[in-house]
Amino acid sequence: MNTKTLNDIGEGGIIQLIQEKGLSRLPSRVKKGIGDDCAVLETAGDTLLLVTTDTLIEEIHFTAKTLPPEALGWKALAVNISDIAAMGGTPQTAFLSIGIKPETEVSFIDSFMAGFQALARKTDIVLAGGDTVESPSSAVIAITLLGDCLPERLVYRSGARVGDNIWVTGPLGNAAAGLFLLLNKKASELSGYESLIAAHQKPIPRLKAGKALGKSGLAHAMIDVSDGIAKDLGHICEESRTGALLQATSIPMSDELLRLGPQVEKSPLEWALRGGEDYELLFTASPANEEKVVSLTTKVSGRPASKIGTITQEDGIWLDTDKGKEPLEPGGYVHFSN
Amino acid sequence: MNTKTLNDIGEGGIIQLIQEKGLSRLPSRVKKGIGDDCAVLETAGDTLLLVTTDTLIEEIHFTAKTLPPEALGWKALAVNISDIAAMGGTPQTAFLSIGIKPETEVSFIDSFMAGFQALARKTDIVLAGGDTVESPSSAVIAITLLGDCLPERLVYRSGARVGDNIWVTGPLGNAAAGLFLLLNKKASELSGYESLIAAHQKPIPRLKAGKALGKSGLAHAMIDVSDGIAKDLGHICEESRTGALLQATSIPMSDELLRLGPQVEKSPLEWALRGGEDYELLFTASPANEEKVVSLTTKVSGRPASKIGTITQEDGIWLDTDKGKEPLEPGGYVHFSN
Repeated sequence: MNTKTLNDIGEGGIIQLIQEKGLSRLPSRVKKGIGDDCAVLETAGDTLLLVTTDTLIEEIHFTAKTLPPEALGWKALAVNISDIAAMGGTPQTAFLSIGIKPETEVSFIDSFMAGFQALARKTDIVLAGGDTVESPSSAVIAITLLGDCLPERLVYRSGARVGDNIWVTGPLGNAAAGLFLLLNKKASELSGYESLIAAHQKPIPRLKAGKALGKSGLAHAMIDVSDGIAKDLGHICEESRTGALLQATSIPMSDELLRLGPQVEKSPLEWALRGGEDYELLFTASPANEEKVVSLTTKVSGRPASKIGTITQEDGIWLDTDKGKEPLEPGGYVHFSN
Repeated sequence: MNTKTLNDIGEGGIIQLIQEKGLSRLPSRVKKGIGDDCAVLETAGDTLLLVTTDTLIEEIHFTAKTLPPEALGWKALAVNISDIAAMGGTPQTAFLSIGIKPETEVSFIDSFMAGFQALARKTDIVLAGGDTVESPSSAVIAITLLGDCLPERLVYRSGARVGDNIWVTGPLGNAAAGLFLLLNKKASELSGYESLIAAHQKPIPRLKAGKALGKSGLAHAMIDVSDGIAKDLGHICEESRTGALLQATSIPMSDELLRLGPQVEKSPLEWALRGGEDYELLFTASPANEEKVVSLTTKVSGRPASKIGTITQEDGIWLDTDKGKEPLEPGGYVHFSN
């Protein structure tokens, strides 16, 4: 009898179990099922339909201490937008399910929706449905977001080529450092680190950069940084059947992160590599297009993407440091791991 | 300061709050947002895209006692299919989010997926994505289902006309009686009532009937019976700005339900009117088409729909009994009500 628990097989094992029970071959209208940032469906028109769904559960993904209601509304939508951005698509229509305790104050929903709609308005997303149900304890926020993309502009995880440069659209580690501060410091001690707090609470999905990279054809493979680049780059390499070599000295980090690290005896580089929840875009592009990548990302984001490494034939993700080359273990936030 | 709780304002109040924070006018590509069984979106092709999302939370919508994992997988998908059936559409693609405790046994997911895929195969639905996350206590199942429908076959809640007959595709109250048995009786006492248990655990969404009623143009308004006809008919009347008069003696009830009622001192009619979770289709049609409705539903479902009342100009939902006409209060399962 099988008495293994989900903890024993991990998130990857669960996803495999779910896939095994499905169809061995997807119908042709499903261009991509499980295994990328979004599912990709054919439509009767010229565009493809992108679908992504993310669930945030209180005590696991957030607490009242780390994420006030307005930030929760913003972030719950932001993480879904980021999935669509990571494929080069345009988000269109959101569906929101809220599970919540009946004794919750009305002002919670008021603030949650203010945060949600502030980001929806900025990104032209329409809330078109959903449901509201009771939850006995933890609040549950499940969002499904639909978007579209022309087939020739779509960027999968699987397109990385050996020799490609690896790029990231912005600084890494800020969100993890912000979470550390929220968990370990008093409000009065946060002065000067507002940008780290904001990176955790109100991440800005890189929608313009994702669309521009898809439209230009510059990005061969793309993913958003949700679990930390060590893990997210692993997804690109796995789907593309390549390896990668990162340069430790090239990882972009903010001044605030570099200032905070020594003060709290933490390594800024560790946060940057494994922290997760940065929602920057990680992508690969031909070395011949280096200047084009710099000028395009500067134009759409106001800052150039940072070149942080190279796609390799050799398996595994490696980090080049002043002490030499070492394997980069994932260790981003992993669900169902002991 | 607003210190009202969600319990004070009820589910209707919450939905209003969510809508208020949204756009005052939906863009034209959203044909229907919040307020029907599904959202309805225009596509570049001939068909409309239907989207529905339902979240089931342990201890609120189910318990391990009332819904074993295989039944949970079936039912979580069935309730979403039913929403698409209620508009005359065809379900296509499902997205599944599971939130669950890490110490859950692997066999739970195995059984859950067996139930889910058994119904998905029967209805040609493809599971194309989703996510798996940790939940600290209650299991959470959130499903989003996409479907399609030709515009001329779509049936809204809002189309009921004064003088229409009110129909229901099958017997009512079985699911509520099944839940009562599961909560109050030992397994050894359930013999002879398997159909009531099945109605609660593995409801059959009326997909063929919904599609046929949409295609034929016979149904003016349609909804699925999830909260009990007293409440669900209220939605049709509210959206259509009509009232309704039901005939108590016409409400279809199964032999098992009629047999169980007196044995446990419960009213079968109460279960039928207010029990909910039957997932039969409730629809209205012109009295001139009475014979067509009977022959169509017999053809697609193997049993004729039951004519249970009339759409009226007079406000409110009324029940005609042997004691005269009385107002039919909703009192189906209502979230966030004291």
